[in-house]
Amino acid sequence: MTDHPSRAGASPFRQLSRRSVLAGATASAVVPVTAMNGVPAAAAPAKRGDTRRITMYAEELPNGLIGYGTSPGEATVPGPVLEMWEGDTLEIELVNNTDRKLSIHPHGVDYDVDSDGTPLNASVNEPGQRRTYVWHSHGPYKAKGNRWMPGSAGYWHYHDHAMGTPHGTEGINKGLYGALIVRRKGDVLPDRRFTVVFNGMTINNRTAPDAPLFRARLGERVEFVAIGQGDLFHTFHMHAHRWTDNRTGMLEGPHDTSPSIDNKDLNPGSSFGFQVIAGDGVGPGAWMYHCHVQFHSDQGMAGIFLVLNEDGSVPEGAQAALDRYRDQG
Amino acid sequence: MTDHPSRAGASPFRQLSRRSVLAGATASAVVPVTAMNGVPAAAAPAKRGDTRRITMYAEELPNGLIGYGTSPGEATVPGPVLEMWEGDTLEIELVNNTDRKLSIHPHGVDYDVDSDGTPLNASVNEPGQRRTYVWHSHGPYKAKGNRWMPGSAGYWHYHDHAMGTPHGTEGINKGLYGALIVRRKGDVLPDRRFTVVFNGMTINNRTAPDAPLFRARLGERVEFVAIGQGDLFHTFHMHAHRWTDNRTGMLEGPHDTSPSIDNKDLNPGSSFGFQVIAGDGVGPGAWMYHCHVQFHSDQGMAGIFLVLNEDGSVPEGAQAALDRYRDQG
Amino acid sequence: MTDHPSRAGASPFRQLSRRSVLAGATASAVVPVTAMNGVPAAAAPAKRGDTRRITMYAEELPNGLIGYGTSPGEATVPGPVLEMWEGDTLEIELVNNTDRKLSIHPHGVDYDVDSDGTPLNASVNEPGQRRTYVWHSHGPYKAKGNRWMPGSAGYWHYHDHAMGTPHGTEGINKGLYGALIVRRKGDVLPDRRFTVVFNGMTINNRTAPDAPLFRARLGERVEFVAIGQGDLFHTFHMHAHRWTDNRTGMLEGPHDTSPSIDNKDLNPGSSFGFQVIAGDGVGPGAWMYHCHVQFHSDQGMAGIFLVLNEDGSVPEGAQAALDRYRDQG
Ligand SMILES: [Cu+2]
Ligand SMILES: [Cu+2]
Ligand SMILES: [Cu+2]
Repeated sequence: MTDHPSRAGASPFRQLSRRSVLAGATASAVVPVTAMNGVPAAAAPAKRGDTRRITMYAEELPNGLIGYGTSPGEATVPGPVLEMWEGDTLEIELVNNTDRKLSIHPHGVDYDVDSDGTPLNASVNEPGQRRTYVWHSHGPYKAKGNRWMPGSAGYWHYHDHAMGTPHGTEGINKGLYGALIVRRKGDVLPDRRFTVVFNGMTINNRTAPDAPLFRARLGERVEFVAIGQGDLFHTFHMHAHRWTDNRTGMLEGPHDTSPSIDNKDLNPGSSFGFQVIAGDGVGPGAWMYHCHVQFHSDQGMAGIFLVLNEDGSVPEGAQAALDRYRDQG
Repeated sequence: MTDHPSRAGASPFRQLSRRSVLAGATASAVVPVTAMNGVPAAAAPAKRGDTRRITMYAEELPNGLIGYGTSPGEATVPGPVLEMWEGDTLEIELVNNTDRKLSIHPHGVDYDVDSDGTPLNASVNEPGQRRTYVWHSHGPYKAKGNRWMPGSAGYWHYHDHAMGTPHGTEGINKGLYGALIVRRKGDVLPDRRFTVVFNGMTINNRTAPDAPLFRARLGERVEFVAIGQGDLFHTFHMHAHRWTDNRTGMLEGPHDTSPSIDNKDLNPGSSFGFQVIAGDGVGPGAWMYHCHVQFHSDQGMAGIFLVLNEDGSVPEGAQAALDRYRDQG
Repeated sequence: MTDHPSRAGASPFRQLSRRSVLAGATASAVVPVTAMNGVPAAAAPAKRGDTRRITMYAEELPNGLIGYGTSPGEATVPGPVLEMWEGDTLEIELVNNTDRKLSIHPHGVDYDVDSDGTPLNASVNEPGQRRTYVWHSHGPYKAKGNRWMPGSAGYWHYHDHAMGTPHGTEGINKGLYGALIVRRKGDVLPDRRFTVVFNGMTINNRTAPDAPLFRARLGERVEFVAIGQGDLFHTFHMHAHRWTDNRTGMLEGPHDTSPSIDNKDLNPGSSFGFQVIAGDGVGPGAWMYHCHVQFHSDQGMAGIFLVLNEDGSVPEGAQAALDRYRDQG
């Protein structure tokens, strides 16, 4: 399940064995707080209000990419999913193993100026430097005027804000970004989770036929975190699956007035997330996800969400579809 | 009320008679399920869970356009509005009367890979071929975790996904698109309904002074379905009318926290719908609707929503406004 | 607190005295209905249903700009914030002190064709002309079908719709725009309020290092009204502060399902507003707000929200940040 450009030698769409495509994935050891694409963190904190400390490494990767990782030599594009519960604090010691100035800047959570991750506030890592960034989160609370101010829960993201320009344009372009999820007590956890970043004309800095291949079994609860970066506008579309356009992607109840959608603007700096039941009502198969800007999908902003049979085998016809995808690209 | 480029010989903004502009329109015979712009389907299914079968024809039209229709020789751009209730199944036999590969791909509803309408899943019509696509819909339901997954209700759309590129870029460009509405039990039906597709630099493949002219009587409940296609970003704006940015465009009640808007992003693959009371609080007249991207409206992405007097006559000053519109263009 | 290009001789980021940065601001005399950036209208109408009449002046400013003002010689870019309660009527006598045709066109409120502000409806000011525009507002109401139609409450805007093209492209480009707020009974009023207009590649027709500097004290309730104009797409991002994506920017309660965001599309003709508690949970400091389209922020679409200490003094390190901001630009 390593779909990252720095790791995948061959296209992920080459012949799949009919069984065990996901074997081992759910049993993978995962570091607390963070997780790779498709493998949720095993140990999301059971109670809220924890303070946890992790180390992250910014490293150069092949093909001119730069990524974040939680161990030396393990950087990926996108970086690991960081996950918190409302009330948690996350202390990130960022190790800059590159020869460029860079930083980590989060969306959604609380941080003081020293953790802003900007040249403006002189809170960046010089080449080779270690530096700690502290992110707090909180639940909804009543402010003066007896009004409820929003909590931190959301599908957020983090990214460099220092390389190349004061806004990190070069760092983002090269892959310094990842998903940040803050959950509210009671939020349902997915069986599987994927990060999809529309960055420039790429998906996770890749294009068809090498765009990310996401795999889940029929009936699994799958969470997508969609993030926009770069200079272009995009719309994220998924075939045969839809979600509610609210905080969680699910209805609060049958009277929730939020619209159901399957296509949503995904522009620079924005992010959203949602959960679907893989293949529910539509069956297994190779389902496309893509930018719906025609010119972008034609240029390679299209990938596959492969819904396997319940037993993990590849459904009828899916390999042929994957072959066509690879050949079209 | 035939505002389609393939049918309208003259501009729809030429002299209107002061009476009877809508005469006959509401009495038009309409096919079940589908309807032309401005004429809601008379026979939206009274109970849910129906399975209905229709035949659609993809045909070439003058000026290089291609449209969908529900009878031979009746193709239009946009195609007919397809309407379902949550729980309904729609079986569409698509007859390809062109010499090009094409398909029909829906948003929002359920379909298996054979009805995906994509080259990826080999579910397209070859030239001359007949092919059946099956679309299911469902209400909200509880999935595991006791969470409500969204139903199919929404203002959706359908389009080609095969002509020219694997994403149907050429088919969409030429007019192969239309509105798909899935309603929830209890949803209020409009008196009149219009489809507005921002496709490239056009509205329904037309530009001022020949952009669609939408007509309703003062006080009628009018439904707009807005759809984005193509390569460009747009914002849909309507003068003197506004709606709620939720599933229906109306408030669930006085405490619904959804914002009221009169301008909304309408980017490729996205769609939304809403109902207004024509001229309510503002009176009859020639009201502009347009893309609010200045350069797009200046280039012709602007049309008229003509709110007639209650008796169907043209309001004071409206003909002069229509004349100015025609001359500006 | 005059950050307007026509008035500010020097950059607002030059040395600030450590005290009294806001001194006098809250005590400024303000005209009813309208207000300058950072200074809320002192006398928002206490009861609803009022009819008020104001005079506005469209005037040429230095550097080729044109602005609206409520007194002769006081035009600004953006124009004054206009504020109503649902049910109010506002009569605006617009005095055109330029030699160009222009108008004022509002979003969100009700107006008949004579107040449309468009060449289409011949409702514009010729050079030198005085002309009255009438804007009504209303609360939510039940229409036929027992459905709640939305009220006028919202964060809206007004702009020219006549100069240069029938859509006012030249007038908007030169600065003829401003915020319009319609409040619902019970809405909480802010301590301070700012208008942020992303117009072309500018913020309020300015760019870094001269983009607007917004100042508030730690703990103040600050309202931002964000407006998009022009030809480009943008995303509005604010550091260290977030809001709810609903009508008010605050949660209706802890179970409101609206997402919390800190980055939102801000495209031509769109507007939104929200309130934050300045520096809450993050502390005082120089916080950036910017367009998150990388190329736009790099080109100057970035400014500072300066959260002062509670006593109004400049926080540790903030002056250095302001100096860096000025030098980067
Ligand atoms: Cu795209
Ligand atoms: Cu447009
Ligand atoms: Cu921008």
